[in-house]
This record gives sequence, C-alpha cells and structure tokens, in this order.
Amino acid sequence: MRIDILTVLPELIEGTLNHSILKRAQDKGLVEIYLHNLRDYSTDKHRRVDDYPFGGEAGMVMQIEPIDRAICSLTAERHYDEIIYTSPDGEKFDQPMANTLSLNENMIILCGHYKGIDFRIREHLITKEISIGDYVLTGGELAAAVMCDTIVRLIPGAIGDEQSALSDSFQDRLLAPPVYTRPAEYKGWKVPDILLSGHQRKISEWQHEQALIRTRALRPDLLDE
Amino acid sequence: MRIDILTVLPELIEGTLNHSILKRAQDKGLVEIYLHNLRDYSTDKHRRVDDYPFGGEAGMVMQIEPIDRAICSLTAERHYDEIIYTSPDGEKFDQPMANTLSLNENMIILCGHYKGIDFRIREHLITKEISIGDYVLTGGELAAAVMCDTIVRLIPGAIGDEQSALSDSFQDRLLAPPVYTRPAEYKGWKVPDILLSGHQRKISEWQHEQALIRTRALRPDLLDE
Repeated sequence: MRIDILTVLPELIEGTLNHSILKRAQDKGLVEIYLHNLRDYSTDKHRRVDDYPFGGEAGMVMQIEPIDRAICSLTAERHYDEIIYTSPDGEKFDQPMANTLSLNENMIILCGHYKGIDFRIREHLITKEISIGDYVLTGGELAAAVMCDTIVRLIPGAIGDEQSALSDSFQDRLLAPPVYTRPAEYKGWKVPDILLSGHQRKISEWQHEQALIRTRALRPDLLDE
Repeated sequence: MRIDILTVLPELIEGTLNHSILKRAQDKGLVEIYLHNLRDYSTDKHRRVDDYPFGGEAGMVMQIEPIDRAICSLTAERHYDEIIYTSPDGEKFDQPMANTLSLNENMIILCGHYKGIDFRIREHLITKEISIGDYVLTGGELAAAVMCDTIVRLIPGAIGDEQSALSDSFQDRLLAPPVYTRPAEYKGWKVPDILLSGHQRKISEWQHEQALIRTRALRPDLLDE
C-alpha cells in the first residue's frame, strides 16, 4: 500500500507517522507513506497556497491550483484507488470503512486547513470525503494520521499479534470485555475471581457475557445493526 | 487551562502539540500542555508498564500501579476537573462536548495503549471515558491530540479569527456552505456568479441556503436533534 498525504503543515504529523506501528509497517515494507508540502506546488513567489474567499466570509480558503498540480503530478505516476479529502461533513469513518480502505493499493489524502478548500476541488478532483467525527479540527492532518493508523494496522503483518486485532472492539460488533493484569489485588481493588480460576472455557464465556453486557449498556446501537 | 497527557509514547504526539494553533495557544499562555511518560512512574527496573492479561487473552495490558502513581502525583498538586481515558467504548466526542470541556481549568488525559488498561483504573481513577469515533487506533495518543486541538481552538484568543470558528460546521448544527477563492475560473470550472456579485445580502442568503441543502443531503440527523 502507498499513501500520499498532501498538507500545508507536514511537521504536524511527521512524528506520528514515524513511530510505533506506522513506523514498523513502513520498515517492513508493508506501506509507504509520503508527506507532500503543498507549498512546493505553489507558483506564487511567497509559496502561498491560500487566498480570501469570494463573497467576503471570514477565514482563508485553500486555492485550487497548488492542489490540482500536486494531485496531477501523483496521478501521472500511478493509478490511485481513492483521492480522499478529510472534512467534517464527509462520510463517517468507522471500522468497516477502514477494513475496505485497507484493501486499496494507492491512496491520496488531502488535508484541509484554514476555512477549507476551494469547493471546485471537491467537485472535480476528490473521489471520497471522510470525516473522523463530529468536531472541528484545525486541519485535516490529525484526521489523516488517525486514518493511516487505523487502516495500516489492519494490513496483515503490521501488528505483531493478529489475534489481538481480531478481538478489538467493533470487529465483531461488540465492545471488548474488561481486561486485567498483575497484581491481582491493588489497594483492595481485586481482579474478578473467574479470571484467576484457570478454567479457560468458563473464562471465555465470562468474557463474551461481559462484552455483551458492556455493549448493551454503552452502545446498544451496535447490536441493532 | 492545563492539560496533562499520560502516555507510553510521548514522541508520537509531541509534534502535533508543538505546531500551529496548539503551539500559538501555549505561547500566548492560554493553555499549558504537559506530556508525561508513564515509564517514569514504573517501579520496574526495565521501566515496564504492561503485563500479560489474567485469563490468557492475546495482547498486553497496561498495569494499574504506574498509572495510579502518575495520577496521584498530579492530583496532589492541584484539582482536576476531569481525568479522561480515551477508549473506543467511551462517550462519543463531539463539538458540544468540546465546548463543555473547553470551560475546564485542569484535565488529565490518559492514553491507552496495547490491548487496553487494567479495568480497575477505569472503575476507580477515571472520571470520563471518551471515544473520538468507532474505529480502533494503536493507542489513545492520536485521540488525545484530536481532543486537545478541538478544545483549545475554542478558548477565546486561540485562533486569530473568532468569527471563523463561529461559522465552522456543527456550531450552528449546519454544515458549512461551499467556499471558493481566486481564480474565478480554473480549467473551465467556475465560481457561482452570486459570489462575484458583490450583493452581500443575497450572498448571505445563498450561503445559508447552501448550508441547509448540504446538511439535508449529507447529515439530516443534525436537523432532527
């Protein structure tokens, strides 16, 4: 898989892409992630990429030309399955969407910044608009990092323990059951006896029951779908 | 406002906290953000903070002791309004929640990692569990960064143009209308005539109408609530 991220602030997420699972997945050759600074595609002598909005609203708008030039230079080299724009009004990102996107070969993620991007980019160049949640971020950079992390850890071999990914929340439409580790007692707070019993079948039953109880209590919507 | 982030991987989000709006807000004295490495609170000679789960599941679990010690050392110094744990089964983070949290004085955000944290921490030490969306991240670090970004930009003075924040998506339960900037025509793709008319009242009407049309089409749920 190859992911190209277009941004005006690459330094905002450089660190997140070069540590932990994302770093290991890149080291193993499972994914290539490239950060492109949109200012490198500006024809302005001050490397400007934004301008005032038509109609006199507050805020600045990212211009169409540097973004079009960046996308064209990438699509001239290879086919991209998706050209994604991160936006709070996009399709809601969730685990099933991450599963689907993890099967792609090449993706571009365009990070919005300032007031937003010239709408013509969204109409003519973007193939998919994605929101990571109903809140407003300073830019799409953190959204891109969230998507990369969620998607890349689904690529076989990316995380050491694949069994662990399969039992994560959402993969079976159930929240994960409570987990505990040593010590068995701390400040009088005890681990449930069943987990110390060594009776594997009963432990599995308890875990499934707890997952159901937690899902019913906290996220009944997951059981309805 | 003061935000203390507890994590095993501070390097994952150091960059995001020290650029753009979050950096400027810290420089202006509007917010103090501290990253604490949980390994500094381990009593283990290898600075270990995780261990195998009771009951023999896959994955590692973060231990109660280093987290308890870190939280106690902070709460001994000052009162915290919330001790937050980032978890996919927590309460869904959204703009109204961000508005509420932006009024807090002091907050701790505990980032989960590995398979999760010892459940007793959630029962006895955490005051609020928050999820940024229905997807599984490698750790809570990106979720903490997302929350910080969303919350801090709501603090008066954090962003240069407060009018811009007020017209963001969600603040009025409407998606933002399309925005455009120069050039008025690019590759034959034109900006809507109305925005070039200079007729401010008609432009405002058009923008409100577009916001309604987009909200009805993409997020009718926002209008129902």
